[in-house]
Amino acid sequence: MGVLYNQVADRLQALIQDGVYRDGDRLPGVRILSKQMEVSISTVLQAHQTLEARGYLQARERSGYFVRLPLVDVPEPVMRKHRSKPVPVSAREMTLDLCADEQKRMVPLATAVPHADFLPLRQIQQSTMWAARHGLETLDYAFPGKESLRRQIAQRMASVGVPVTPDDVLVTNGAQEAIILGLRAVTQPGDIVAVESPSFPGILQALEVVGLRAIEIPTHPSDGLSLEGLQLALEQWPLKACVVVSNHSNPMGARMPDERKKQLVSMLAAADVPLIEDDIYGDLYHTGERPRPAKAFDRADNVIYCNSFSKTISPGLRLGWMLPGRHMAGARQQKYFSNLATSSIPQMAVAHFLEQGGYDRYLRSARQNYREAIERMRAAVARSFPVGTAVSRPQGGFVLWVQLPAGVSGTRVYHRARAENINVAPGLMFSISGKFESCLRLNGGNPWCERIDQAIARLGALTHEEQALKG
Amino acid sequence: MGVLYNQVADRLQALIQDGVYRDGDRLPGVRILSKQMEVSISTVLQAHQTLEARGYLQARERSGYFVRLPLVDVPEPVMRKHRSKPVPVSAREMTLDLCADEQKRMVPLATAVPHADFLPLRQIQQSTMWAARHGLETLDYAFPGKESLRRQIAQRMASVGVPVTPDDVLVTNGAQEAIILGLRAVTQPGDIVAVESPSFPGILQALEVVGLRAIEIPTHPSDGLSLEGLQLALEQWPLKACVVVSNHSNPMGARMPDERKKQLVSMLAAADVPLIEDDIYGDLYHTGERPRPAKAFDRADNVIYCNSFSKTISPGLRLGWMLPGRHMAGARQQKYFSNLATSSIPQMAVAHFLEQGGYDRYLRSARQNYREAIERMRAAVARSFPVGTAVSRPQGGFVLWVQLPAGVSGTRVYHRARAENINVAPGLMFSISGKFESCLRLNGGNPWCERIDQAIARLGALTHEEQALKG
Repeated sequence: MGVLYNQVADRLQALIQDGVYRDGDRLPGVRILSKQMEVSISTVLQAHQTLEARGYLQARERSGYFVRLPLVDVPEPVMRKHRSKPVPVSAREMTLDLCADEQKRMVPLATAVPHADFLPLRQIQQSTMWAARHGLETLDYAFPGKESLRRQIAQRMASVGVPVTPDDVLVTNGAQEAIILGLRAVTQPGDIVAVESPSFPGILQALEVVGLRAIEIPTHPSDGLSLEGLQLALEQWPLKACVVVSNHSNPMGARMPDERKKQLVSMLAAADVPLIEDDIYGDLYHTGERPRPAKAFDRADNVIYCNSFSKTISPGLRLGWMLPGRHMAGARQQKYFSNLATSSIPQMAVAHFLEQGGYDRYLRSARQNYREAIERMRAAVARSFPVGTAVSRPQGGFVLWVQLPAGVSGTRVYHRARAENINVAPGLMFSISGKFESCLRLNGGNPWCERIDQAIARLGALTHEEQALKG
Repeated sequence: MGVLYNQVADRLQALIQDGVYRDGDRLPGVRILSKQMEVSISTVLQAHQTLEARGYLQARERSGYFVRLPLVDVPEPVMRKHRSKPVPVSAREMTLDLCADEQKRMVPLATAVPHADFLPLRQIQQSTMWAARHGLETLDYAFPGKESLRRQIAQRMASVGVPVTPDDVLVTNGAQEAIILGLRAVTQPGDIVAVESPSFPGILQALEVVGLRAIEIPTHPSDGLSLEGLQLALEQWPLKACVVVSNHSNPMGARMPDERKKQLVSMLAAADVPLIEDDIYGDLYHTGERPRPAKAFDRADNVIYCNSFSKTISPGLRLGWMLPGRHMAGARQQKYFSNLATSSIPQMAVAHFLEQGGYDRYLRSARQNYREAIERMRAAVARSFPVGTAVSRPQGGFVLWVQLPAGVSGTRVYHRARAENINVAPGLMFSISGKFESCLRLNGGNPWCERIDQAIARLGALTHEEQALKG
């Protein structure tokens, strides 16, 4: 401060931290900035150099200055042979704490549940009214799912490279149930199943319900499940299934490139190990085109595809679906025996909403909302957390994976934050073997606001304190 | 015919078969009948004697003539020591056939699903509209269940002798899921569980999902589960649970008297074996007072109570509840891990319907409807089935258990009836050990109509044919 170019640098830094300029954006040219900020061109140039030194800008030859948040990417996992052993999945109660009713007053950074403002609730309300007026059909049993909904789902699946008929669709109580039905259709209790690491806790819970053992396969922060790690596991263990979130995996936000998806599908088909694919974040890509699911490359009918409307319409609907392929008979039987059918009213409401055609328009705004929210959250983490903190660079979805500096306990930060009514997910939850103790997952599915900004700042401060205690 | 008293007897028999006079009713006095029918008193008396000979009337000294359908009651089971062995429950696919979508055009005598005319669909439509207007709250996650619904359920439970708070209630996807969560909370795969015999197929399916073995305990046609049989099983096997439909058990319609419920509860508490009670037909008693569930006598917190709105509001809601008692933590965890929560919209709609106060009024008419439908179905069976057919005398609910004459295969009648678009449930479905081959279960939850009348007549004719083939 005091010096003019420092003031200009501060103003530019604030614009970056507020998300006006985003990670990867090119800054306007010096002439434009000099005019906008009413300073000389040389002051702008000095401010640029200052921000470059602070780590917020990167100069590219002949292209100008680009925004670059001072964040370290989550490092790639190191592959080691015979590193993991199958572990029976049990005692994952921590999740229940995170989701308990009494946590509703806390700052909601723990569960991957979108804020109501980001969901098409008005539309689904209207469609529920419509469904209610339909009376009889709406209140009838709906096994294996309302035909109107299965038709809409089949249409959407075709648009992502998975041409199916309504008869190929089994409606479920969310993707969680779909994964469980898929596991039941292809495994026996005690079998070994490969999962990502870090893994979405719901998948670990599904394995626990079915009574399975898990082998953790390292996940690359941008490319997803390590195929090399999976190959090692296939050679070493009699795997009966592999569960993967192929697009914008939770918690890292990784997206497998198409080429790797193809490899994954053919590796597993060759080994005769079914792939259970959870595509729940597939529609929530931040940029570019809708990534295809692994199922789109499934020539051998070896992929059991699972998805849900929980992230894109409302989690309270408990409405998902699966394409069990050749395992349809087993999945249908398990569904019927477990709870007969999925509730009809939500099915009729969602079918009507999809028929009305507003869903894709909604998804466009949702993608934009999540992209912005995640960018602001990354910027806030960059501001507040100690040097040495690494942060994921999600390509979709709305969660952020934060790796604290070496030696700092995410579990301790989690407990201290909870005491201050800030609810985050500790890294330990994402492993069955005690990994990720120094990590946190943050839910970015909220409109940015003062309360969340302050919560992130506070998390950063707590991490600083924990780091100081270690030193 | 021809003879006048025979014509009068025919007219009276028609009134009985049409349900104007019901099983157990006292006929009007001879003077009144003679006036009504415009015949002499002696003709009425001769007609009475004729109907007594036909098996439709019973003379009681000083009391007159009483209607008595020419039906044999389902016989009591014979207890034999070491008669049953635990059997792993598997391969119960037949049920799926009965319930498949394509069966909707058939005469619906197979599944225990009430006809739409017998359900309060207009009321629940209105309440769904109300819930839809409530938007946000209605679309939110609802684990462990919407508070408003749990409060209504707690109030109803208090009224049947089970005083609980809303916090004691866990909302489930129907009673089927409640039973599964209860089983999971108290058993491990491979454990042995006692079930009624004949048993509701859904309970056998629940055991299959959880990977349990079952031991079948004979069920008395009016008193329910044989306590003597249960005692033998407790002495012989390390039972981990006992699943009982204590009120109007499906398929026999038996209701355990309070004294036997008390004995059941204390026997199991003494043996430290949890009772999983399914009270889904409790509200659908045909006469008298609402029978209490076994849970009302549970001093040791050893009864896991399960119920649902599937038989009294709509099966398509997939909405039930449980009172897991001291097993709440385990049941909650299993629920959350299985599918997170039950869909919110149906919960809000049912809570609103119950709050409005129309539910009890509806139940009164439903009980009357089911009683009448079952009586007409019993009369129709009496008309059409061969001598030697035994029929249950349900004290509630809306299913009828028919035991065909010795040697006649219910499975063959089932297959032949299906070929003629009449869907019934073959007795084999109600056992894991091949029992009840000569039985059928008929769904009486439909308004009486020509189509059903003819279907019962046709089932009787098929049974006659099968009997002739045997002879």
